Amino acid sequence: MGRMLQEVAQRWNMPVTCMDNSDDSPAALYRDHFVKGDIRNYEDVLNFGQDKDVITIEIEHVNLDALKKLESQGKEVHPNPRALDIIKNKNKQKEFYKELGIPIPNFLTFEDQREALENFDQWPYALPCIYKCAEMGYDGKGVRTIYNKDNVYDLEDIPGAFEERVDIDIEIAVMIAANPKGQVVLYPPVAMYFDEENHILSEVHYPYEINTEQLRLMNDIATKVISELKICGLCAFEFFITKKGEVLLNEIAPRPHNSMHISMNNAVCSQFEQHLRAVSDLPLGSSEMHSEGIMYNIIGENDDKGIAVWNGWKEVLSIENAFVHLYGKTIIKPARKMGHINITGDHMETLRSNLEKVKTYFKNNKNG
Amino acid sequence: MGRMLQEVAQRWNMPVTCMDNSDDSPAALYRDHFVKGDIRNYEDVLNFGQDKDVITIEIEHVNLDALKKLESQGKEVHPNPRALDIIKNKNKQKEFYKELGIPIPNFLTFEDQREALENFDQWPYALPCIYKCAEMGYDGKGVRTIYNKDNVYDLEDIPGAFEERVDIDIEIAVMIAANPKGQVVLYPPVAMYFDEENHILSEVHYPYEINTEQLRLMNDIATKVISELKICGLCAFEFFITKKGEVLLNEIAPRPHNSMHISMNNAVCSQFEQHLRAVSDLPLGSSEMHSEGIMYNIIGENDDKGIAVWNGWKEVLSIENAFVHLYGKTIIKPARKMGHINITGDHMETLRSNLEKVKTYFKNNKNG
Repeated sequence: MGRMLQEVAQRWNMPVTCMDNSDDSPAALYRDHFVKGDIRNYEDVLNFGQDKDVITIEIEHVNLDALKKLESQGKEVHPNPRALDIIKNKNKQKEFYKELGIPIPNFLTFEDQREALENFDQWPYALPCIYKCAEMGYDGKGVRTIYNKDNVYDLEDIPGAFEERVDIDIEIAVMIAANPKGQVVLYPPVAMYFDEENHILSEVHYPYEINTEQLRLMNDIATKVISELKICGLCAFEFFITKKGEVLLNEIAPRPHNSMHISMNNAVCSQFEQHLRAVSDLPLGSSEMHSEGIMYNIIGENDDKGIAVWNGWKEVLSIENAFVHLYGKTIIKPARKMGHINITGDHMETLRSNLEKVKTYFKNNKNG
Repeated sequence: MGRMLQEVAQRWNMPVTCMDNSDDSPAALYRDHFVKGDIRNYEDVLNFGQDKDVITIEIEHVNLDALKKLESQGKEVHPNPRALDIIKNKNKQKEFYKELGIPIPNFLTFEDQREALENFDQWPYALPCIYKCAEMGYDGKGVRTIYNKDNVYDLEDIPGAFEERVDIDIEIAVMIAANPKGQVVLYPPVAMYFDEENHILSEVHYPYEINTEQLRLMNDIATKVISELKICGLCAFEFFITKKGEVLLNEIAPRPHNSMHISMNNAVCSQFEQHLRAVSDLPLGSSEMHSEGIMYNIIGENDDKGIAVWNGWKEVLSIENAFVHLYGKTIIKPARKMGHINITGDHMETLRSNLEKVKTYFKNNKNG
């Protein structure tokens, strides 16, 4: 996502530098604007920030103490470290929402396996339930279904929570942007579809019909949370809509997010330009979507390995309004996000049938 | 334009390398995909092409002998050197159109000043007429109004032509794309507005109302010419529509073109992605425009010099749907194209009033 942010920054002649611990990182394409370093390392992050005016993130696991130090030095850090401290820990997130009275699935948090076992014995809701580790979980990592106590013994001895498994009708993402002046822009809601096996986001569809009351509630929650957390920049809100029609907040991500990659081809202002505007204290752009759209994630399959070689280019580009975005990652691995394909148009039925063609044609050549 | 082509190439993980004689070139941003060299130099161009499969251009003045040699080595060269040979010389272009029966302004070509003087004496049309040098003229360079014989004495002793000054109602550009498979896509016509003083393109507006017959004629001419010249890639056709309603072809440019920069924000497939598709023998994208648009060129003014520092960012980005595209050029000079601003929307009247704001606010800080 650093690379996609750079695309906008370069159009503005804005000096944006990315840090990653690999020379082979997608963002390293902009070599003159790239620093090799470990985002989890205090010294690396602190040093990186010394000559910068504004520091932002594209993943939550950036060294928090370094960000706090940078902020104390007078740097603009977006999202602010206090918000990040809450968000990067799912237990803290849950407690925070509960305190604000925001509807979320029922849960019990724990600090270690011993407490997890105690909680399991007292678990008042139906089984199976969902286990989520408190930190470092994303793209389905650190999430498991708990059927019985044996599953709890299998858990790592780290903080986490049990969560009521809700009967999900659809998962909806709402992206919100805010700048330091207090201007706020909401993108239209999109539907998220996940890979069953590893719970990685596989598709995003816009539009998805939601009733007005549900949408109002989601927008209100997003607006309230970023206001409470004083977030500047983008913040993606992932909601469950249950079969009973309840709206429950699942989690948030205070940065550009996979759920809004479709904006690169169907929105007036893409999420990357919006994030750059927001953290740079510039006026926000229009979140209007001029076309319907489906985003399809290109993800390494279980038997993918080695150097990625993509088959099906001609077939995919011959599909009306299909746009390929690869991230410049050389090596493919199971469950690795390699890129995405956006399909736009005016008729969701056509988009869906084009999506099926994309899925059929665009494949890594496993002999390549 | 090499930089804007790279943006698309990088999304495709497609290894595209640009050559320019300055390390400070916009395309040098992609340092790992940049070669320093003189596009007018035979050896430089030939060497550059040795490890490439496809070679294309973004300005006509590339060494033609080197391109011919590369083609003879089996490389794909788009546009093909025979077409480029005709196009880069305005005299040859005129003769070519005349032979094909394509309507153009009346003209007389000459090889040197002596012949220019003879032609002037025999000039059968009204005065003043327009002088155009045969080669290297672009952005108003090498174009002059000829009022009397004294002006002819002032001309350089090089090939050129006198052209009848037509009573222009509007200048229209039509962009066409073709791939080696013979697929052809036409973009909708756009209106071009020029700076009076130096005849540099200052604005492009879409849509512009043209009668069906005129549009059909322009599209037919574009289709016929690229078919005759066997052009693959983009080709911009610049037309005069006279006050009497005649359609006259002015000149063409077989590459991405300033007149279609608006496509970056209002077309399904931008001209840069289209060009990359076309020269790479990939299926062409949709040229549909989902929004109305105005492109405004950011051009150095007569008193601009030194390092460019842009004022008015906040004001411009606060305008609905205004998008800034700078080219990464450090030094500003009079008449230098530094970037452009695209304004999109649904109502041309709003776009026009937003354009006025852009013109007022976005200025180089002449004290910076």
